[in-house]
Amino acid sequence: MNFSAERVVLLGLGLISGSLAKALRRGGWSGELVAWGPREKSLALGAELGVVDRYSLDLDEAISGADMIVVGAPPVATGELLAELLPKLAAQAHAPVVTDLASIKGFVIAAGATSYPGFVPGHPIAGSEDSGVTAARANLFAGRETILTPLAETSQYALEQVQAMWLLTGSRVTLMSVQEHDAALAASSHSPHMLAYALTMALAKDPLLPMQHGGGALRDMTRIAASDPVMWRDVALTNSEALLKAISQVTDELALLSRMVEQADSPALTDYFARCRQVRRDHDAVLNPLFESANKETEQP
Amino acid sequence: MNFSAERVVLLGLGLISGSLAKALRRGGWSGELVAWGPREKSLALGAELGVVDRYSLDLDEAISGADMIVVGAPPVATGELLAELLPKLAAQAHAPVVTDLASIKGFVIAAGATSYPGFVPGHPIAGSEDSGVTAARANLFAGRETILTPLAETSQYALEQVQAMWLLTGSRVTLMSVQEHDAALAASSHSPHMLAYALTMALAKDPLLPMQHGGGALRDMTRIAASDPVMWRDVALTNSEALLKAISQVTDELALLSRMVEQADSPALTDYFARCRQVRRDHDAVLNPLFESANKETEQP
Repeated sequence: MNFSAERVVLLGLGLISGSLAKALRRGGWSGELVAWGPREKSLALGAELGVVDRYSLDLDEAISGADMIVVGAPPVATGELLAELLPKLAAQAHAPVVTDLASIKGFVIAAGATSYPGFVPGHPIAGSEDSGVTAARANLFAGRETILTPLAETSQYALEQVQAMWLLTGSRVTLMSVQEHDAALAASSHSPHMLAYALTMALAKDPLLPMQHGGGALRDMTRIAASDPVMWRDVALTNSEALLKAISQVTDELALLSRMVEQADSPALTDYFARCRQVRRDHDAVLNPLFESANKETEQP
Repeated sequence: MNFSAERVVLLGLGLISGSLAKALRRGGWSGELVAWGPREKSLALGAELGVVDRYSLDLDEAISGADMIVVGAPPVATGELLAELLPKLAAQAHAPVVTDLASIKGFVIAAGATSYPGFVPGHPIAGSEDSGVTAARANLFAGRETILTPLAETSQYALEQVQAMWLLTGSRVTLMSVQEHDAALAASSHSPHMLAYALTMALAKDPLLPMQHGGGALRDMTRIAASDPVMWRDVALTNSEALLKAISQVTDELALLSRMVEQADSPALTDYFARCRQVRRDHDAVLNPLFESANKETEQP
C-alpha cells in the first residue's frame, strides 16, 4: 500500500519528528509538511532549515486539512495532546490518521483514551542524546525498527498508512501488543538509560574524577546520560512497573558477577563473558544496521 | 625528547600492539618492528598485513637487539612474561626499555616484581570489542590518554622514551601512581564493562527477547560486552577490590533511582537526569576526542 497522505502535520518539532520529515523527503515523498508547537523559535528554525514547509502556532489552523498527524512530544505531553486532539477529530468530516512517537504506549493510550479509529500508537526505536530540530537526520530510522501497537478499534486503513509512512523512512515495522511493547522496551531501552544515568552519577561523585580517564567504553556507556531529562523523567514515571523489574534483573546479574569476582571464580567469569560476547555478536545486525550494511564486506574478514 | 629506538619488539601481536605498530608508522617512525607471540598464525598475518617487519616464535631471538620491548597480553600473561623477561634483560649489556599495555598496573607490577630500571608500566586508554591484529587501527590512540605509572626505580631515560613513543601515536600521556590508576580505572573502565555484561546477560535471559528491539542506546550499552573474555576475566580477578567498590557505587545509584521511580518523585528525577546530562556534556571532549576535533565547528551550533 502506498503512503497516500498529501499533508503531514507534525505536532511538536524536534529530533524525532524533524528526522521523520527529512526521511520522508529522502524517501521521495513530495506532500506538504506542516509543523505546530509551543515554541515559535524551533518552528521557525525548522522552516528555515527546510525541514518543514510551513508552521503555525495555532493547533486548529495547523491540523486543518491534514491527512496524517504525527504527535512528537515526551510521553506526558503526548497523552495530553491526544486527549485534546482525538475527540476534536472524531467530530470532523475529514478524519485524518493520527500516530505518535512516544517510547511508552500504555500510558499514552490511557491518557488519550478514546475510540478514534484513525489512531495508531507508534514508536520508532531510534534517537540520539541530542535533541531539537537541528539534530534531525534523514537516516535516523534507516534499518531501525518501528513498533506499532494497533488497538481493537484501529482501522486497517490507518494502520496501513502509518506502516507505509515508516517504510518510506527506511525503517522496519513490527506490530506488537501494548503490554509486550512496554515490557520489552523497559528492558531494551528504558533500563539501559537508567544504567547510563547511574554510572554517570557514580563517576561524578567519585573524588578520583575517573571520568577524566575514560576511553571509548565510557564514551558509549554514558552517551545516553546526556539525553533529554524531561523525556526520560516521563518514561521512568509512566512505565515504572516494567522499568523497576528490568532494573532489578540487571542488578541481580551485577550481584551474581560480584560474587564470582569475590570468590575469584575464574571459569565462571570466563564462561559468563564468553556467553555475553556471543549474545552481543548475534545481535550485531539488529543493533548496528547501518554499520552492518555499510561494512559487511570489508569489516568481516 | 625524541623517540630514539631503532628496533621495537612487540611481545604479543593483537589489537592494541598492532595498533601501536601502525600508529608509530603513521607518526613517521621508521625503525624496525619485530613481533613475538605464542601463535604463528597471528604473527604471520601481522607480517603479511605489513603491521610488523618480521616475527619470531623464539623469545630470545625476538628480543635480541631490541631498544624498546612492548608487552601486549592480558594482565596475567603480562605479569608472567615480565617475570621471565626482566631478570634476563638485567643480565644483558644492552638494556632495552620495557613497557606493557595491561589495564591493571598493581597486579602486573607485583607479578613481574623486579627492580629493572628500564621498566615503565603503561596503559593506553583505548580499545575495541574486536580483538586480534586484523582489528588494529593507526588512529586508535589519537586524542586518547595513555597513563604511565613509573616506579621508584624507573629511570628517567626509560620514562622519557616510553612517553615519546606514545606521543608519536597521537596519544596524551599522564603520569599517575599505581594505586590511583587502578582505582580510577576500576570506576571509568572496569565497572562499565561489568555493567555491559550484566545488562547483556539480563536481556539474554528475558523471555521477551528484548535485544531484538534494541536501538542505538542498546547498541552502545552492550558493545563492550563483546570484548575479549579472557582479558576481562583477568581484569576482574586482578583488580577485584577496586572493581567491587566501583560496582557497588553504581548499584547504590541504581537503588536511589529506583526509589525515586517508586515514589514517583518527578522533580528529583528531572534534577538527577539534568545533572547527568551536564556531567556527560562536560566530558564530551575527553570521551570523544576524534569526534570533537572533526566536528567541533559544524556540530556545535
